[in-house]
Amino acid sequence: MSLFIKGGTIVTHEETYQADIVCVNNKIVEIGQQLTPPENATLIDASDKLIMPGGIDPHTHMQLPFMGTVAKDDFASGTRAALAGGTTSIIDFVIPNPQQSLLEAYQQWREWAKKAHSNYTFHVAITWWDESVAQEMETLVKQHGVNSFKHFMAYKNAIMATDDILVASFTKCLELGALPTVHAENGELVYHLQNSLMEQGITGPEAHPLSRPSSVEGEAANRAISIANTLGAPLYLVHVSTEEAVDAIRYAKDHGYTVFGEVLAGHLTVNDSVYQNPDWATAAAHVMSPPFRPKHHQDALWKGVQGGTLQTTATDHCAFCSEQKAMGKDNFTQIPNGTAGVEERMMVLWEKGVNEGKITPNEFVALTSTNTAKIFNIYPNKGCVRVGADADLVIWNPNAQKTLSAKTHQSNIEHSIFEGMTIHGIPETTICNGKLAWHQGNLIAQSGDGKYIDRPTYAPF
Amino acid sequence: MSLFIKGGTIVTHEETYQADIVCVNNKIVEIGQQLTPPENATLIDASDKLIMPGGIDPHTHMQLPFMGTVAKDDFASGTRAALAGGTTSIIDFVIPNPQQSLLEAYQQWREWAKKAHSNYTFHVAITWWDESVAQEMETLVKQHGVNSFKHFMAYKNAIMATDDILVASFTKCLELGALPTVHAENGELVYHLQNSLMEQGITGPEAHPLSRPSSVEGEAANRAISIANTLGAPLYLVHVSTEEAVDAIRYAKDHGYTVFGEVLAGHLTVNDSVYQNPDWATAAAHVMSPPFRPKHHQDALWKGVQGGTLQTTATDHCAFCSEQKAMGKDNFTQIPNGTAGVEERMMVLWEKGVNEGKITPNEFVALTSTNTAKIFNIYPNKGCVRVGADADLVIWNPNAQKTLSAKTHQSNIEHSIFEGMTIHGIPETTICNGKLAWHQGNLIAQSGDGKYIDRPTYAPF
Amino acid sequence: MSLFIKGGTIVTHEETYQADIVCVNNKIVEIGQQLTPPENATLIDASDKLIMPGGIDPHTHMQLPFMGTVAKDDFASGTRAALAGGTTSIIDFVIPNPQQSLLEAYQQWREWAKKAHSNYTFHVAITWWDESVAQEMETLVKQHGVNSFKHFMAYKNAIMATDDILVASFTKCLELGALPTVHAENGELVYHLQNSLMEQGITGPEAHPLSRPSSVEGEAANRAISIANTLGAPLYLVHVSTEEAVDAIRYAKDHGYTVFGEVLAGHLTVNDSVYQNPDWATAAAHVMSPPFRPKHHQDALWKGVQGGTLQTTATDHCAFCSEQKAMGKDNFTQIPNGTAGVEERMMVLWEKGVNEGKITPNEFVALTSTNTAKIFNIYPNKGCVRVGADADLVIWNPNAQKTLSAKTHQSNIEHSIFEGMTIHGIPETTICNGKLAWHQGNLIAQSGDGKYIDRPTYAPF
Amino acid sequence: MSLFIKGGTIVTHEETYQADIVCVNNKIVEIGQQLTPPENATLIDASDKLIMPGGIDPHTHMQLPFMGTVAKDDFASGTRAALAGGTTSIIDFVIPNPQQSLLEAYQQWREWAKKAHSNYTFHVAITWWDESVAQEMETLVKQHGVNSFKHFMAYKNAIMATDDILVASFTKCLELGALPTVHAENGELVYHLQNSLMEQGITGPEAHPLSRPSSVEGEAANRAISIANTLGAPLYLVHVSTEEAVDAIRYAKDHGYTVFGEVLAGHLTVNDSVYQNPDWATAAAHVMSPPFRPKHHQDALWKGVQGGTLQTTATDHCAFCSEQKAMGKDNFTQIPNGTAGVEERMMVLWEKGVNEGKITPNEFVALTSTNTAKIFNIYPNKGCVRVGADADLVIWNPNAQKTLSAKTHQSNIEHSIFEGMTIHGIPETTICNGKLAWHQGNLIAQSGDGKYIDRPTYAPF
Ligand SMILES: [Zn+2]
Ligand SMILES: [Zn+2]
Ligand SMILES: [Zn+2]
Ligand SMILES: [Zn+2]
Ligand SMILES: [Zn+2]
Ligand SMILES: [Zn+2]
Ligand SMILES: [Zn+2]
Ligand SMILES: [Zn+2]
Repeated sequence: MSLFIKGGTIVTHEETYQADIVCVNNKIVEIGQQLTPPENATLIDASDKLIMPGGIDPHTHMQLPFMGTVAKDDFASGTRAALAGGTTSIIDFVIPNPQQSLLEAYQQWREWAKKAHSNYTFHVAITWWDESVAQEMETLVKQHGVNSFKHFMAYKNAIMATDDILVASFTKCLELGALPTVHAENGELVYHLQNSLMEQGITGPEAHPLSRPSSVEGEAANRAISIANTLGAPLYLVHVSTEEAVDAIRYAKDHGYTVFGEVLAGHLTVNDSVYQNPDWATAAAHVMSPPFRPKHHQDALWKGVQGGTLQTTATDHCAFCSEQKAMGKDNFTQIPNGTAGVEERMMVLWEKGVNEGKITPNEFVALTSTNTAKIFNIYPNKGCVRVGADADLVIWNPNAQKTLSAKTHQSNIEHSIFEGMTIHGIPETTICNGKLAWHQGNLIAQSGDGKYIDRPTYAPF
Repeated sequence: MSLFIKGGTIVTHEETYQADIVCVNNKIVEIGQQLTPPENATLIDASDKLIMPGGIDPHTHMQLPFMGTVAKDDFASGTRAALAGGTTSIIDFVIPNPQQSLLEAYQQWREWAKKAHSNYTFHVAITWWDESVAQEMETLVKQHGVNSFKHFMAYKNAIMATDDILVASFTKCLELGALPTVHAENGELVYHLQNSLMEQGITGPEAHPLSRPSSVEGEAANRAISIANTLGAPLYLVHVSTEEAVDAIRYAKDHGYTVFGEVLAGHLTVNDSVYQNPDWATAAAHVMSPPFRPKHHQDALWKGVQGGTLQTTATDHCAFCSEQKAMGKDNFTQIPNGTAGVEERMMVLWEKGVNEGKITPNEFVALTSTNTAKIFNIYPNKGCVRVGADADLVIWNPNAQKTLSAKTHQSNIEHSIFEGMTIHGIPETTICNGKLAWHQGNLIAQSGDGKYIDRPTYAPF
Repeated sequence: MSLFIKGGTIVTHEETYQADIVCVNNKIVEIGQQLTPPENATLIDASDKLIMPGGIDPHTHMQLPFMGTVAKDDFASGTRAALAGGTTSIIDFVIPNPQQSLLEAYQQWREWAKKAHSNYTFHVAITWWDESVAQEMETLVKQHGVNSFKHFMAYKNAIMATDDILVASFTKCLELGALPTVHAENGELVYHLQNSLMEQGITGPEAHPLSRPSSVEGEAANRAISIANTLGAPLYLVHVSTEEAVDAIRYAKDHGYTVFGEVLAGHLTVNDSVYQNPDWATAAAHVMSPPFRPKHHQDALWKGVQGGTLQTTATDHCAFCSEQKAMGKDNFTQIPNGTAGVEERMMVLWEKGVNEGKITPNEFVALTSTNTAKIFNIYPNKGCVRVGADADLVIWNPNAQKTLSAKTHQSNIEHSIFEGMTIHGIPETTICNGKLAWHQGNLIAQSGDGKYIDRPTYAPF
Repeated sequence: MSLFIKGGTIVTHEETYQADIVCVNNKIVEIGQQLTPPENATLIDASDKLIMPGGIDPHTHMQLPFMGTVAKDDFASGTRAALAGGTTSIIDFVIPNPQQSLLEAYQQWREWAKKAHSNYTFHVAITWWDESVAQEMETLVKQHGVNSFKHFMAYKNAIMATDDILVASFTKCLELGALPTVHAENGELVYHLQNSLMEQGITGPEAHPLSRPSSVEGEAANRAISIANTLGAPLYLVHVSTEEAVDAIRYAKDHGYTVFGEVLAGHLTVNDSVYQNPDWATAAAHVMSPPFRPKHHQDALWKGVQGGTLQTTATDHCAFCSEQKAMGKDNFTQIPNGTAGVEERMMVLWEKGVNEGKITPNEFVALTSTNTAKIFNIYPNKGCVRVGADADLVIWNPNAQKTLSAKTHQSNIEHSIFEGMTIHGIPETTICNGKLAWHQGNLIAQSGDGKYIDRPTYAPF
């Protein structure tokens, strides 16, 4: 199986130059000027196009069981959407129930993921604590290629990790060379505000952002960072959505600590006016946590991206259809939290970032793949275009355009938070594991083609 | 009972000017040039001296029951020390045991305080929570002149207030027009670090600061502030000792929130090298929480004082003698936490603040009495020199000097964290409730002369 | 001449309480409950009204000669407008031409000001430098009650003070105990941008803000502050209009330096969209320097006001009529810079500050008079309601309302940057020098009633 | 000419892995496991050693004509020292006299540099301005491989660039795709302080830091950044030595601007106590601008390095011997400014950075070569270990040690600011242009082996 990509412009996180690329099996084997294609190679003409590392989305929730239902995009449809958007790997989440064995949950998710079209790997959530959890963390790290653990600081009475759990788990992560990550919202405040709003009779989607104001995220971000700093552990914050959290990360970095921040394509581009939509279903379609924010937070997020405070972009892809959202018709706290985006992430960042002059194409690559690969220690196999690297690539046509819509997206749900946005510059061809996976609007990869990615510990940061 | 103070220079938080003062009973009744003394008035010559509002120490713990022992300075000796240092009022703490009635504890402390030489009032600590606590808070506010409640974010398994308690109590404070205050240290981290140090066999006083690094305070400060901000409540942080906490307060103030910070005379002037003292007793004598800090934190505290981020100065006076400290001979976590200082506070601030050019005499007055009076809503009765105000005054001799020492201090304990510091400018005469209370080294006030201060709610900040 | 003000609520920068006030001649002689009016006193019923110190506008330019014309409001009409708005004192500017004697210019302005209805005093601008300037600064300070000097960092080829002048003059100010003030904009950048815009054919009022972006002010603010800090001098920045300048002041204050910031009512409430007005005259009416700014700067200014970074409010009242503005019809750099506002300042701050919950009434007083009085060392004669203080007062009716308009304002010009703003709470009666000066819409003061205010040096900051 | 480097561990700014390297002529041609050496290749055993890109010092002044004398290290001895320290390229400065042709000066420096042992290239200083300067900038950029221009904001009455020059030159740089750089100190303040100190009779080296306090640098850094930001130009600040300047760069980066900061090995490790040395010659040996700073600035610089605010390390190598320094015996302003360091830079950064845990070996590489190569647009030819890159390498022995001393250094001067510092981990072998240049203490390169480096414009930042 070999591919010959001719005449494209390679864009990495560092460089831009024209060259041909030869891929054999799942590896890039040659990069250079005027190369000769191997025999039987599939030829791809990349003239006037950009060749970049395939995107890595470090935050998705395919077929997540949640509130008695299951997210509509499973690993098959979710990774189909990923490939359609130029993303060749996702990092999803194993979320054990409190008291459930981590290994048991992990095996369950591995089973579910077998039908994936793209590559995948898993963060594992720490939702409870005792000595067996610590032992299973070690087993996951040493035998199953897991190098990151997730902690939810919200969702009281469910999967919330209180400070004692954070302290214990971060300590174990540090010992294992794994990276702790957090969903940063103060669960006590959210719980209080939810109850208070319901008591006041404010029950619709417009209550959702009121129950999770920016200070709730800022507090938790700062707390997780301080706990990690105190213990000497690094930290990764998922879906940073507020000025306060950006400031907290920056403060830590300015004081010499190792803290990473992830931002969602949605938080960068959608603001909180969506919750005022008079159509309940439309407003509810935007219910996710953290919520979309007033405009000045978006400015802060972009500044965070430009200044290096935020390093990765993700989606928190967790797709619930209108019928599912309607579970919270009378109580906003019962609306399943989540929106889609794995397909649109790179396009949105290209349009709003590169085309608006906020970031360079090299920074685009860093933000959509390279930084994630480095932080989760799969660089330079992933996240780069280089001899010896995995042949996960996206061929970007900067001259083509497309209007995003739920009508045409790959996700199984019927709304899109990016509905109607026109993108100038689109992922035309996606190559995954050295094979054409998506080409000019057609899925070529098969369900099951995706591979599990082992991630070693002790990343060099 | 009347006093005539002649020829002094009045220094308030705003102004400096020369005038005579007439006090009748416990009030200032006249201020002006060349006044005529009332008949039978006691005459005090204040030529070449400064007349300032009597100091208010917003943070003391007289005869605190703690760890099976009781602090050595009771309300008699503690307030004797206060008067000797120019301080005419203290705000002490009622600390109910978890599950104990707040009113019961309050009455107990009122009883103990009857022997006070100076004026006094009480913050009440919230160490547990149920509906009865909320009701007793209301009773204390409406019937007993309490307008502030204290929350310990440290001391796990004892009096620690977890986030749910903070949320509930701050909400109640807001409703009542009372001011929530916090001791900001992350109790989970302290607990973890204490255990970890003990396990490593690090058991002496040198372990104390290691178990409470500055990040532990910074985290809690930020958390309490965020919770208060989210709820719309003001907040007062006691004994701010770190750069991180100063930064957290400043960040909040810069974003328009109402947050106050208190700093101790000790934290401003003593650094963490004291814990390296080879003499166990000397090192242990400095064990208090938060601990003394590396030098750069002192710089940050002074900057905080100068820039208005910190508004009040206190001592956390809680005196344990060497014998008591020895309870922790084999385990630093068992050393009773606390140091003295109520006598030295104003002198130390004068020497290190005014004499070193860091603050003006007007700022000295603001920091030692006026700001505290305003924040705890007893201004302008207290904290100012003005017709109609309470006759609580200190006459400062800027030309006299004195060397601080445990040998000569009024406290009942045998060490002083300010041992050997020479002060240029000392409180020569203290007037409390319109009467000479301390004069040229002699106590004149009687035990029981001190009055309880009722504090109304809804301070105008 | 005596006044008896009955039943009002006194609001100072610190306190709020109900009391009667007696003024005799130009002084407040008694404040208290249920006072007896002096014989022949004019009675004013202040029931349900607030009594505050008369406003002080620290930044006006009455009848300023500028670009071959003269500002339309002279000291008569300008101070009439002041009284109508509750302002009883202004600080105007003596602006000598380069090479002109400071004393000569000062005398000229004193002459012009004789017709003032309200009190007044002068900053003197340093527009050039040699040893005679230093000597005249000394004379002004020692013989004429001047305690502040102004420096324009913009207006290249005219009155711009380059760094060597700033260094020399700040040094002299420090020696004299006077306060240096600056108009902070980088004149070289403005000059470059003006030329560049004109070359590109962008000649209308919309070019004005483009020629003076926020970074131009941020730079100069930081530079002036650093120069003052280096020399050990305090500094006062007039008309702070940008986030960058607020940040620069805050940075200095956080590092222990003495820096003050003034903000204009206009910059707090009007944004840069005014320059897009298709009507040339309307757009040109808003041309002033620094220009009105994008919205996020207003947020930063309000935060600066709330957090104490900005201490005073002013107007830069400098009124040019449409005919004068038309001088720049073909060249925006020739549009006379300036807008009116001395009448509206306090009302705008009440409406947008107090009524919107951003500041308390006490803070309103601090921001409109007390802080200015303290900084320019005329406190407590001015800026306070107290026995012994000057009887300059405004009686505010919080229940009355009024819509601001050029049709009804006192200024001689035909436009208002506050046109159409409805104010809830208005200055009903203004008392200046112990006399009714403005009452229920009628001017009572006579031209010439205003007094010159001597300002001593070495203010206690 | 070929080299075979066997068994070493390659360290780049991103990765660490073991591999053999083959260099042919001046290029790296193969990297891989168990490679076969080319015939006749020189074999180098790098087992247990690290192979890193040769260092690039972006700031040196070899044989600089200055104050009637010439710096003692010329391009021969200076680059000998560079190679001895693992540095294979320097960026020196062409400094035309005011009114001198830039091209003429450039040719002069090119001539002087012909004897270099290592590679070299030049920044060109803009010390005056007229249209011919702009034209010569263009010629230098288009025909001579210059892509950066230097501006001295200090040195009044000599080479100081005032704001009008900065504006004009930055504008031209932006047009040409070149990078403006600045020496940031406010020349007016320095001039004032120098005169003031001399007038006070403070004439020794101890006056030097007093004449250039940190605020003087902070001001200029902020000014240059603001001017660049306003014009849309990027900016590079040489020798950042203060907390203020670090803060200014960070502020700009946090707001989305492109600003780079360079830090000297000396400023990171030497503090201002050196100026108190009672030996005049020793104190004078440390006279350079900006001066060495109080300790808290070093902390800020390290934080800047760790947090990404500062990207490059340099030396400002400008060597004056004791005899030359003595020119300022009676007047500190006449002491030639400068210290050596090109040999020690990498060792000092290894010892104080890597060995003390402040930076990782990958960050060490980024800071000593990669970032400089990227910023000055010679990456990936320089600054990386990769097939196709120039064979400029240093082989680092982490297990060897060495004590720095003027007795053993390569510089021609008789003192070292790093005297006595022991380094654990040293550059054992330096390869320049594919040839052994320094090996185990011996110089192998010939004078003249160094090559001029052309630098293209429009670096991709
Ligand atoms: Zn989440
Ligand atoms: Zn998620
Ligand atoms: Zn405490
Ligand atoms: Zn306490
Ligand atoms: Zn101005
Ligand atoms: Zn003005
Ligand atoms: Zn320099
Ligand atoms: Zn230099």
